[in-house]
This record gives sequence, structure tokens and C-alpha cells, in this order.
Amino acid sequence: MFTPRPIGFVSSPYKSTSEVPKGLGAKHEAEGALNILPEFELGLTDIEGISHLFVIWEFDRSQGFALVGTPPCDDRPHGVFATRSPYRPNPIGLTVVELLRREGPVLHVRGVDMLDGTPILDIKPYLSSIPTEKIRTGWLAEVEARKKG
Amino acid sequence: MFTPRPIGFVSSPYKSTSEVPKGLGAKHEAEGALNILPEFELGLTDIEGISHLFVIWEFDRSQGFALVGTPPCDDRPHGVFATRSPYRPNPIGLTVVELLRREGPVLHVRGVDMLDGTPILDIKPYLSSIPTEKIRTGWLAEVEARKKG
Repeated sequence: MFTPRPIGFVSSPYKSTSEVPKGLGAKHEAEGALNILPEFELGLTDIEGISHLFVIWEFDRSQGFALVGTPPCDDRPHGVFATRSPYRPNPIGLTVVELLRREGPVLHVRGVDMLDGTPILDIKPYLSSIPTEKIRTGWLAEVEARKKG
Repeated sequence: MFTPRPIGFVSSPYKSTSEVPKGLGAKHEAEGALNILPEFELGLTDIEGISHLFVIWEFDRSQGFALVGTPPCDDRPHGVFATRSPYRPNPIGLTVVELLRREGPVLHVRGVDMLDGTPILDIKPYLSSIPTEKIRTGWLAEVEARKKG
């Protein structure tokens, strides 16, 4: 397989995981920046007009993985591939952010949920979405129903 | 950084990149399977109820990267981070699929656009989406307008 390398690093208001909003209905409105390394800046050409981006990044401060774990919003365990747990076989994170503006190699964005200094692996345009009425969230919907009930 | 390892491999009807639908309005309705390795099967616990999944995978048959390239739908070059080009600094792909059913370590899905045998790095639940009216696609919208005009 390939050897991952950072294309840049996140500037985020969050210095530790305890500060990141988690669980049901957590809003990710925090503003931050994607600071792209100079040697990759050309890859940002024409990104200005794109409103939302997928950011693929490394959970660089998580150690090891657990195939089953109990997320902050529930008291029951679930499989790692059905959650956003940081303890994954490949410690890869995925966040959708809104692009506010670009200043050279710096993308100012809204919606960061990564820690400050997180290495960025890739950025891709968010071009279409699944209609909300088609999304079923499985165990998460059950947790919501249980908490309301 | 971490050393990536496959958690499984894709079964897809596409054996070569020329077979994969590309460009404006390409529909990804192909059915395929995510075959998870036995040692990671426990990580699928409770995934059955989730309708859509992010699949993060390796472009294992692309060599090198280009910071700027001309995509199939356009005759003008764009930055790699504003496109879904396979020639990326980290050869990581991202696809949203619909989960049709699970059979043990095999997830039957709709919407594959990977080649047969593609290594899977991670699977995450698709829990919410950006409303379509908020998405701007920048250069892609310009291509569409130009082709219509």
C-alpha cells in the first residue's frame, strides 16, 4: 500500500478531544483553517467556487483500535465501522466543511471537528448529497428514540 | 504517520477504469460488495440498520500524482483537490454507497465506482447531508452551463 504523507495541517479551536462537541445533535459550527503545504498549493486551483469539501485526515493522537466500542451518545457498544470512533484499524477521519474563503494555501472553513494540528491527507469536492428522507441511521435513531421516550 | 492496511476488498463489475461511468451526471447505480476480512468482521456490528456508508479506499492502480489535471467532463485543467482525479498525493478514494444487505462479513451495496479488487481502508456511517440548495459546485457548474449554452 501507499505511504501516507500530510498535504497540510488543520488550525482548529480544539486542543483536546474533550473540547470537541460529540454525541446526538452535536453542531459543528467551529471555524478553522486548512493550511496546505506550499508544494501542494497548486492542487487548490479552482477550489474557490466549491461550497463544501470532504476533508480526509489522520487521527494522529489516537492509539490502537477497538472493533467494538461504546460511543459518547450511548451506553451500548457498536461496531467501529458503524461509528465515528477514533480507534479504527486505519486511523482515518472524514469531515465535511463549508469553504468560507481561500487565501493562497489557506482554506478558511466552517465545521471543523478535528484537533488543532491534525494532519490532512486529502481534500475532495462535495458535489452531491443523499436526500435526508432516504437516510436511515440505524442504532443512532434507536438511541434518539430511547432518549426521547 | 500510520501504515495503511486493507480491511477488505471491493467486488465490482468494473475491471478497468474505462468501464466506470464518469463525467457530468454519471450515475453510480452499479451493485457490488464490500468483502471485509474475517479479523475485522466484528467491526460491522449494528451496521445493518444504516442505509448509506462512506467507503474510503485506495486507488491501488493509479501511479503518481498531478496537482493539476483535465477531468473527463471538461477540456480545462483544475486542481486535484477540486476534482475526484485518481492521481492524488495520497491515493485515497471516497465513495458513498447504499447498503442493501449484510451477509456476515459481506456488505452488498449499490453505487460502487471502484475497480474490482480495490482495497478498502475504512467504512463510516453516512449520518447527515448538506441540503442540495446549499451546495455550489464551482467549476463543475460552469462546465454544465457551457455545455447547455
